[in-house]
Amino acid sequence: MEWTEIKVATTNEASEAVTNILMEAGASGVALDATDAGKITAYYPETIFVPELLPQIQQRIQALPQYGLAIGAATVTTAAVDNHSWATAWQKYYHPVRLTRYLTVAPSWEAYQPQQAQEQVIRLDPGQAFGTGTHPTTKLALAALEMQVRGGETMLDVGTGSGVLSIAAKQFGVGPVYAYDVDEVAVASAQTNFALNPIAQAISVQANDLLAGIQQPADLIVANILAELIVPLIPQAVPLLKPNGHLILSGIIADKVDLIKATLAKHQLKVVTTLNTGDWFALIATQEEN
Amino acid sequence: MEWTEIKVATTNEASEAVTNILMEAGASGVALDATDAGKITAYYPETIFVPELLPQIQQRIQALPQYGLAIGAATVTTAAVDNHSWATAWQKYYHPVRLTRYLTVAPSWEAYQPQQAQEQVIRLDPGQAFGTGTHPTTKLALAALEMQVRGGETMLDVGTGSGVLSIAAKQFGVGPVYAYDVDEVAVASAQTNFALNPIAQAISVQANDLLAGIQQPADLIVANILAELIVPLIPQAVPLLKPNGHLILSGIIADKVDLIKATLAKHQLKVVTTLNTGDWFALIATQEEN
Repeated sequence: MEWTEIKVATTNEASEAVTNILMEAGASGVALDATDAGKITAYYPETIFVPELLPQIQQRIQALPQYGLAIGAATVTTAAVDNHSWATAWQKYYHPVRLTRYLTVAPSWEAYQPQQAQEQVIRLDPGQAFGTGTHPTTKLALAALEMQVRGGETMLDVGTGSGVLSIAAKQFGVGPVYAYDVDEVAVASAQTNFALNPIAQAISVQANDLLAGIQQPADLIVANILAELIVPLIPQAVPLLKPNGHLILSGIIADKVDLIKATLAKHQLKVVTTLNTGDWFALIATQEEN
Repeated sequence: MEWTEIKVATTNEASEAVTNILMEAGASGVALDATDAGKITAYYPETIFVPELLPQIQQRIQALPQYGLAIGAATVTTAAVDNHSWATAWQKYYHPVRLTRYLTVAPSWEAYQPQQAQEQVIRLDPGQAFGTGTHPTTKLALAALEMQVRGGETMLDVGTGSGVLSIAAKQFGVGPVYAYDVDEVAVASAQTNFALNPIAQAISVQANDLLAGIQQPADLIVANILAELIVPLIPQAVPLLKPNGHLILSGIIADKVDLIKATLAKHQLKVVTTLNTGDWFALIATQEEN
């Protein structure tokens, strides 16, 4: 697989906003330079045609001063990188990260020993697909899972990407997990990562467009995907949710929260908990009581 | 200690809103009837003069139909109960509750065995003070702690009440914990509960007005108290926060979130994560980077 790299040189101040713009444009991962957060590299899979995106990305970055953010030079450059180079580039940035008190994500190539009792480790090789576990949307989804999981649930993971949420769910004690992704590359990546984590080896993963045609009832349906995909997912999820089941939605940018809430309400789902970091939101929803 | 009981008979639909009104008026605990959530009982400590509160509570309940909530008869009755009766009444309602994947609160009088591996139990006798762990503000504070704690931190718990957050912090692996409450009854209750939980026996607890005069630097400062008290707490907390330290604030009703955020901003504290359930909010804040 070929990847396209977009590099932006901006200010520390604008770093978070630019990262959001790059992620919203579909980046699989965004890395900040360790010594200068204004130097940002984003990676796009070959399914995304970057030249078409570039003008929009540049325009949105140039608009940031309207919101009071100094953007500096704000140069945007691109390059194609092959799979091997991308993995190598990624390895420079990707190190073990404690995501919650009980959960740490560590790259498969790095020796890592838990630093504390009860710390649970997810081994991940993010080289082939989305989701290192360190992005705010993934952290919020994991925190929501920790709040909601009690153990033994049946779970569907929609848009599993690297499989990180499915593996975390198994670490939290969830029962059967069914993972789906529309992208065959993601499915292969999730399979690799499930194999890296003994606890996750029984997870079923298959290529599927959201939950189209899926008949598996579930206590938990988790989706860490773009808000634009969450909208059509909600009506598919409703008939699969068991009584008292919960939908955990992440990947929602601030601008889209109202859209998602309205879509949930339209399908008699009630938001019970909202989590927010920076511009990103995660929602836990369940059926309205009659 | 004498307690005053307020009973409200309303509809299921208005139950959450009425609970909020009763909690905002200073209830130590609110119990819903197991078969009819519209039957609500709230308990007020003797430090609160209930007759003075009643007209305001009634007025706020009567205003709920303006927000589209049917309130039914909405009768409000009061009675004085002594300590023993209150504890007995409370015991009818208070049972073990899983609060997060890893944390369960169980009353001291009930035998409870963890249902799953890694489930950590807090033993609590809530008979003497605030905080059973089951109120949304406490659940949000606990979820925020799980997101933020990595282990070994020094923590201050302001307005410790029953001590539930301090005990949870020890379960999460926090280092030294210093708990404070302005109410001597709460201090005694926290002491009782620390003694019930071997992991919490080293916690220091003392009567203090918020953090007035406290000199102990901390990585974490936690307060699950009314927003009106959080406002004066913030300037006291700032000089005690170590570099990269975090302030975890809960007990914030929706109407007060902007006030708290403005107060944090005024003291160069940045909200990194917001958690919300119903009308209640918790915030995690840290120092702004220069």
